[in-house]
Amino acid sequence: MNTYTFDEISVGQTESFTVRLTDKEMDAFREITGDINPLHKDDAYAAEKGHKSRVAFGMLTASYLSTLAGVYMPGERSLIQSVEIKFSQPVYPGDELTVSGEVTEKNDTFNLIKVKVSVRNQEGKKVLKGSMQIGVME
Amino acid sequence: MNTYTFDEISVGQTESFTVRLTDKEMDAFREITGDINPLHKDDAYAAEKGHKSRVAFGMLTASYLSTLAGVYMPGERSLIQSVEIKFSQPVYPGDELTVSGEVTEKNDTFNLIKVKVSVRNQEGKKVLKGSMQIGVME
Repeated sequence: MNTYTFDEISVGQTESFTVRLTDKEMDAFREITGDINPLHKDDAYAAEKGHKSRVAFGMLTASYLSTLAGVYMPGERSLIQSVEIKFSQPVYPGDELTVSGEVTEKNDTFNLIKVKVSVRNQEGKKVLKGSMQIGVME
Repeated sequence: MNTYTFDEISVGQTESFTVRLTDKEMDAFREITGDINPLHKDDAYAAEKGHKSRVAFGMLTASYLSTLAGVYMPGERSLIQSVEIKFSQPVYPGDELTVSGEVTEKNDTFNLIKVKVSVRNQEGKKVLKGSMQIGVME
């Protein structure tokens, strides 16, 4: 886990990591949230809607932004203030996701950083883009 | 699970549900994401940072927006396009959260609805506010 202080962070700094989103994470997310929507559970239903298989929960893909902030940028001193997300392509269970962040702003008055985020699948397609405002604790 | 079609949804329509966020969900979310930040795990560390106990992952609280869209508004036909979230108060394991959504816009061209969302704790304090843009599938 990174332990960047506010002063150690520069605009332009980047962090990234790769995870595989599998049925295990799908089942655990469904258990947590109670989101029993068939698009995320039933291959035949998802196929009717034009998908190659059941689709990953968007908010499960977004969950990895927690890791980006809390483990990578800034790591230990992270306190997420706000998040904006757009889902641009479906994610399917089994996909390998690369989660990336780049610091685009620093607010010295409130020790806040703005991090532009993207998630790409194993084909390099962007499946999520957005930004986070993160407080960097003393 | 609700099965609202686009035509059955009106601006001003509301949905809400209540969940308890416990250590079980905290552990499952940590397992999914790999976010091992001590603020969410270590009571003593969180106390040093001014909290009464370890703090819930913000993106775990945000996960319930998946349920709001996929089960309640619009329910089965949901496909989340984008999400904006602000965290306004900390959530602690054991908190009872009421997740609410209100339809504020309908886009007839793309069958999209905009839903204003809020999450309040058992004391009625707003812990998350934001909005979602959601496609309503045929």
